[in-house]
Amino acid sequence: MRLTVIKVGGNIIDDSAKLSAFLKEFVLLDGVKILVHGGGKIATEIGKKLGIEPSYVNGRRITDRETLDLVTMVYGGLINKNIVAELQSLNCNAIGLTGADGGILPAMKRPVKDIDYGFVGDINSDSVNKNVLTHFLKMGLIPVIAPLSYSTDGYMLNTNADTIAQEIAKALSHEWDVQLIYCFEKKGVLVDPDNDNTVIANITAKGFEELKENGIVSGGMIPKLENALEAINSGVKKVIIGHADDLTALYAENAGTCIL
Amino acid sequence: MRLTVIKVGGNIIDDSAKLSAFLKEFVLLDGVKILVHGGGKIATEIGKKLGIEPSYVNGRRITDRETLDLVTMVYGGLINKNIVAELQSLNCNAIGLTGADGGILPAMKRPVKDIDYGFVGDINSDSVNKNVLTHFLKMGLIPVIAPLSYSTDGYMLNTNADTIAQEIAKALSHEWDVQLIYCFEKKGVLVDPDNDNTVIANITAKGFEELKENGIVSGGMIPKLENALEAINSGVKKVIIGHADDLTALYAENAGTCIL
Repeated sequence: MRLTVIKVGGNIIDDSAKLSAFLKEFVLLDGVKILVHGGGKIATEIGKKLGIEPSYVNGRRITDRETLDLVTMVYGGLINKNIVAELQSLNCNAIGLTGADGGILPAMKRPVKDIDYGFVGDINSDSVNKNVLTHFLKMGLIPVIAPLSYSTDGYMLNTNADTIAQEIAKALSHEWDVQLIYCFEKKGVLVDPDNDNTVIANITAKGFEELKENGIVSGGMIPKLENALEAINSGVKKVIIGHADDLTALYAENAGTCIL
Repeated sequence: MRLTVIKVGGNIIDDSAKLSAFLKEFVLLDGVKILVHGGGKIATEIGKKLGIEPSYVNGRRITDRETLDLVTMVYGGLINKNIVAELQSLNCNAIGLTGADGGILPAMKRPVKDIDYGFVGDINSDSVNKNVLTHFLKMGLIPVIAPLSYSTDGYMLNTNADTIAQEIAKALSHEWDVQLIYCFEKKGVLVDPDNDNTVIANITAKGFEELKENGIVSGGMIPKLENALEAINSGVKKVIIGHADDLTALYAENAGTCIL
């Protein structure tokens, strides 16, 4: 059976009109689905008002205790519950979850090597609680997952939404035909990053190596595609990368870049 | 089958040592259970930092838009998820829920009569989504419910935790033998409010009328007991009122006041 895991990022979360349009398309997609959402600037704005300054070590963002409380509130409370309430109004029986709820995403607090990232959780697909998630899906509930995991020592952890979407997709690919859709601010992987009409429709592992060598794919797109290919190798059927405005077309594979 | 619905208030939530002790007792209680938690002062403190002043009309607290966002963050995010993570560390598979999650507590935004309470939700046991809650309980999940409901028009609402505990207890009393425990800062209903050794062990409807006439029960205790009696009339087997420190004894009916 088909399962679609969709990740939507902060740029949509921060714009309530765009988010509403996105959710209206989301509810119309056929079949079983899971939404994973990112954070957005609202956490930074609320953090500023609370006097919490983002802290960085060697250019990497650190989740200190105060920041953990902030993201637990904003991601797990404000953003997650407002999305759920809006989906409920669209007759979509959503259930908002963090990784702690139902024990779905136990994580390891990232070990300190060069940098102490603080309260950041590393997850992997083997420890995803597939049983609970599958139960929810079979009940007809639509999980809406905030970018938070937890330590079995009893505290929350901050985890990247892309990673959560990927590990859940991998974990559930044993039972479902999983399609993983990453919505971001571009139309897909572009030959010319400034031209939305140059979307590369399909990328294979071999094609990716060529695109890297030619310098067409660079920067932040490299780890994104590496992760997508790794998901495919782990059993995910398709990974589609494209613009949140095109959700219906991405779902139908009429837009974005498809990694096979 | 027995189901215990336990409400714990802000005075425990605000004290992390007391909360931990309470949760350790909670996980040891036999059988199927639901925890409903209140808000606590932490929302007011965070609100102050954010420049959100509590607003009152005729002495009644109003939930304006800003306050709604605040309680959604703090009750539904910070407090709820920290409780869930702590329960997970105690091998209790908790799931944090607001009324919007799984559509468990649809509410009516309180109609404006003399006072516009703002984003406050009135709920009743008939509209509680028993099906979803029962499913969770049968999966072995322990619902941890924040004092928030939602409007089917797509937004969150603020709802009193006592009311949520009561309406859920009533709704589930058709299928379960429900015991409802209210934890608060007193040992129970006291003959002498300043003496914890004067707990009234049992109160019936008839006894309640006498206690009111004698002036032994007054003030905020009157609606608390009226609600308890109403719950009993609606099918709840027992309502027990007592101190959060005594949870194990309350559960065993060796402490607190039992309303029958």
